[in-house]
Amino acid sequence: MKELIGRPGSVSGLLLRIGQFSCASIAISVMVTTAGFATFTAFCYLIASMGLQLLWSLGLACLDIYALWKKRDLQNPILVSLFVVGDWVTATLSLAAASSCAGLTVLFSRDLHFCTGEYHLPCINYKFAVAFAFVTWGLTAISSHVMFWILLASV
Amino acid sequence: MKELIGRPGSVSGLLLRIGQFSCASIAISVMVTTAGFATFTAFCYLIASMGLQLLWSLGLACLDIYALWKKRDLQNPILVSLFVVGDWVTATLSLAAASSCAGLTVLFSRDLHFCTGEYHLPCINYKFAVAFAFVTWGLTAISSHVMFWILLASV
Repeated sequence: MKELIGRPGSVSGLLLRIGQFSCASIAISVMVTTAGFATFTAFCYLIASMGLQLLWSLGLACLDIYALWKKRDLQNPILVSLFVVGDWVTATLSLAAASSCAGLTVLFSRDLHFCTGEYHLPCINYKFAVAFAFVTWGLTAISSHVMFWILLASV
Repeated sequence: MKELIGRPGSVSGLLLRIGQFSCASIAISVMVTTAGFATFTAFCYLIASMGLQLLWSLGLACLDIYALWKKRDLQNPILVSLFVVGDWVTATLSLAAASSCAGLTVLFSRDLHFCTGEYHLPCINYKFAVAFAFVTWGLTAISSHVMFWILLASV
């Protein structure tokens, strides 16, 4: 259990956090640079949710770097409990944000045909941001499960 | 661990499954009886996702009734592994469906004002169905965590 891939304070854990941080950053950047995103509540929620994910992953990546540098063990039950709750909350919020934006993107492109014709919304940007939000959720779900496994093995 | 609330083959487990089944049924009924729901892909996906949830919860409720009636113990690792995977998949699909429909409902009611005026969409029905879909997800997330806990205690 001590050698589980993605555990806190390991190189694989750090890479997982960097992946979450990068994907969340790309999703935010793409959405923010898309004209008129602020008209839609779901797209603003995506930015808020990915922003929270970004801060959380950045914080844990810094903690992983510190643990690797000082050769500290981060696998104590109190810290891991905090990681489990944080990962579960951010994963749930990320999935909700990605899904609501995916719902809007499908509505614009397939149901209302707002991506072409009169409105000509930049749907390719929405799709790109949504795809990266889903990848962020996937990586956070992996972290969440690894942490839960470590917690239950330690109690 | 054997006395955990919501465990398979117990009265609390059966009540949890009946709750999931009832909420999913209400979400489907409200959406199906709303005129023009089939125009929107996300609302069709909600019906599909809640339909899957309904079948899953009904199946497990029948298994709970059988276990209570015959006084059988359902807590063997293979069965519980199946319940964990099934609950996790249905919970994820339910949250995705509820969130995408919530995104559309907010878009219609707040961003585009389609609930009043020319279009006059039945947004109160959409809100009702989305609320029950979120309750279904909540109850399934509880089941999923209880099952995961039982599985890890049994290995």
